[in-house]
Amino acid sequence: MNTVELIRKKRDGETLSEEEINFLVSSFTKDKIPPYQFSAFLMAVYFKGMNVEETSYLTRAMLNSGKIVRLSSIKGSKIDKHSTGGVGDKTSLIVAPIAAAAGIKVPMISGRGLGHTGGTLDKLESIPGFKTNQNLKKYKLILKKCGAVLIGQTKEIAPADKLIYALRDVTATVESIPLITASIMSKKLAEGIDGLVLDIKTGNGAFMKDEKDAEELAFSLIKTSKDFNKTVIAFITDMNQPLGNYIGNWLEVYESIKALRGEFAEDLLELSTTLSGAMIFLGGKAGSIDEGKEISMSLVKNGKAFDKLLEIVKLHGGDLKFIKEPGKYPKSKVAEKIISKEDGYVSEINTYELGTAAAELGAGRKKLGDKIDPKAGIIFKIKIGDKIKQGDVIAELFSGSDSKIENVKKKFHRLIKYSAETVKAPELIKKVFS
Amino acid sequence: MNTVELIRKKRDGETLSEEEINFLVSSFTKDKIPPYQFSAFLMAVYFKGMNVEETSYLTRAMLNSGKIVRLSSIKGSKIDKHSTGGVGDKTSLIVAPIAAAAGIKVPMISGRGLGHTGGTLDKLESIPGFKTNQNLKKYKLILKKCGAVLIGQTKEIAPADKLIYALRDVTATVESIPLITASIMSKKLAEGIDGLVLDIKTGNGAFMKDEKDAEELAFSLIKTSKDFNKTVIAFITDMNQPLGNYIGNWLEVYESIKALRGEFAEDLLELSTTLSGAMIFLGGKAGSIDEGKEISMSLVKNGKAFDKLLEIVKLHGGDLKFIKEPGKYPKSKVAEKIISKEDGYVSEINTYELGTAAAELGAGRKKLGDKIDPKAGIIFKIKIGDKIKQGDVIAELFSGSDSKIENVKKKFHRLIKYSAETVKAPELIKKVFS
Repeated sequence: MNTVELIRKKRDGETLSEEEINFLVSSFTKDKIPPYQFSAFLMAVYFKGMNVEETSYLTRAMLNSGKIVRLSSIKGSKIDKHSTGGVGDKTSLIVAPIAAAAGIKVPMISGRGLGHTGGTLDKLESIPGFKTNQNLKKYKLILKKCGAVLIGQTKEIAPADKLIYALRDVTATVESIPLITASIMSKKLAEGIDGLVLDIKTGNGAFMKDEKDAEELAFSLIKTSKDFNKTVIAFITDMNQPLGNYIGNWLEVYESIKALRGEFAEDLLELSTTLSGAMIFLGGKAGSIDEGKEISMSLVKNGKAFDKLLEIVKLHGGDLKFIKEPGKYPKSKVAEKIISKEDGYVSEINTYELGTAAAELGAGRKKLGDKIDPKAGIIFKIKIGDKIKQGDVIAELFSGSDSKIENVKKKFHRLIKYSAETVKAPELIKKVFS
Repeated sequence: MNTVELIRKKRDGETLSEEEINFLVSSFTKDKIPPYQFSAFLMAVYFKGMNVEETSYLTRAMLNSGKIVRLSSIKGSKIDKHSTGGVGDKTSLIVAPIAAAAGIKVPMISGRGLGHTGGTLDKLESIPGFKTNQNLKKYKLILKKCGAVLIGQTKEIAPADKLIYALRDVTATVESIPLITASIMSKKLAEGIDGLVLDIKTGNGAFMKDEKDAEELAFSLIKTSKDFNKTVIAFITDMNQPLGNYIGNWLEVYESIKALRGEFAEDLLELSTTLSGAMIFLGGKAGSIDEGKEISMSLVKNGKAFDKLLEIVKLHGGDLKFIKEPGKYPKSKVAEKIISKEDGYVSEINTYELGTAAAELGAGRKKLGDKIDPKAGIIFKIKIGDKIKQGDVIAELFSGSDSKIENVKKKFHRLIKYSAETVKAPELIKKVFS
């Protein structure tokens, strides 16, 4: 097959066949097509898109570049949850223990934080001893034993995705719905799942700023899931403010521990139990999402979800000391309170910049490979619609460096807008599709 | 500067500054930006285009990647002609001697044939001894001595263009007006010209099949030429049939010799004298294109243009024997006449396929570096509108290989369509812009 001709076809808006897409992906993965041809192809896809079939072919080609984990020896429905990422989004740490406590098997392959968003792996690794780089044998074993496993992408899982993602990242071809779909689905399908709950974020702290784009991505993910005979539920949720109040790796583990002990921030409670409710429903342990939500609440109340967290952390090699007594976790070198200079109702939060600020304090990375500080981050105490008075503490910053605190402090007030009129809080769960 | 951000800007249709374009071109040329980023940028340019300023910046960046020849020590106006390429287009071999005989200095850096089109360098090299790889010192010397020089792109001339063109060729990013403009203009401006005559071909044997695209390219080239203070005239000319009757390297030199001796095919006469007329006009040796055309005709009639060809060939190291007695040139191993099977008026010629057929016979290349056979090609005896009878010889094929002749012969009749009604010949020179 002629690579230039295939690039030209996509460039001119023609549809590629399964054979053609397979050829491109497998040749690129095997180093038989140079990156400069593949990146031109990616840019053509960015502009011309892919139809449902092409997106499935691409997903399958990327999936088949590696291993698909067989989980048939493990009883029960295997249901994962995937979020497109936002600021303060620690639901994976909460829904995995809840769903596992409800008898669902949760095989979760997660990513690291980049830019303004955190990553589940980084959060987990803030727990001393917690190992996220388990091999696939250990992955199955942990899942079988406690009903949930959380690891990073191994080299056997969709290696084509890893290569293609790295290329997209440096060629401005990340924001493409078929490419995002194939990247997410190739990894999720490799986990060995039966069903998938999707949390597609939209708003000023999400990758999909526009709700229409978020819906389009949801439809694309749903169609591809169904093409692979997986059950699926997708939520479009608000990311115009952080989820919960804690941003940063250990800070988010801390908030998750509090949550699983019943001390929920309202929005975090609502979204986490909805997502775990949907997982329990998809896994056949509830007759509806609402029933799954009720089950989730009771598993938090009766302590079984927290016990499950302890079990999960232990099986991943994590030290239970700080899970049981999170107050004993080492403190950040520098801490600084941010005091409101204004009176009014919180009307807007620049969530993207807030995530970036947490990263600057040490909680995140500018590029993959950068070191992170597990203790760094922000406790962000306000929500849109809150009435704030001059002198109120609106946030606390944590960092290992005075100068980083100073830099963030300087611009912090610009991230929040106030209104003299009352402001309605945005709706958290905007839509649900399946 | 952040390369990904620059790719994103172009992808999103934003305008790049001179500094940004310089950065991209010079970093790519110096191997500081990997080809996979530059090809993604090229694809973004394909989709989003460039405005007049950006096209000039790109041209200047590519021009400045190499040397600009200084021709101020040579008296007279330096005027070149550039054609976008077609089938049977040998006008360079005719207009260079005519314009030089009229006192114009013609510094010509030409290319090789690729795909369905021939290249001036290949045609010239069919003359035994003719050297097209002269260095820039020799280039100036020949130009000074005889008023015309014809060489290939040296490594000093716009090296960025050479690198970018090679990348465009393998990433389906050739057909982009700003990229074509910068590629042509960076080389032409490096020649040291004062003015430029452009022959933009349109039709089924041209790169710009569509007349609107050809006009758009003409405007882009004219604007860029003017930005660099060069005088310019652009013709939009028909390429729905071969120019003249001979296709192939020596065959085209042969037809050029005949032409300069007064034995012109009508269309070749019309276009060549128009182009050389425009060169003579731009060079200030005529008051109008028409007057330049008359001067051209008289230089052919009085033998001065042919004498100039002899001088040019000699100074490039070529053997004059075959120029003086072209009939003595070695004959092709196999020759075959094509006889018409139909009666009617020629209504359509698949010029692209005709060019490809000549290449298959040995006159051209599939990829750069392929060897060519100077004697191979086609004498194509018919023009659109001609009345043809069954049994008429419509073409003669020449090749070094029986099987190649057989292959081309099999499909040859499909390249021509006939009509029972009379057919109007297409207008050769469609438009002129300056």
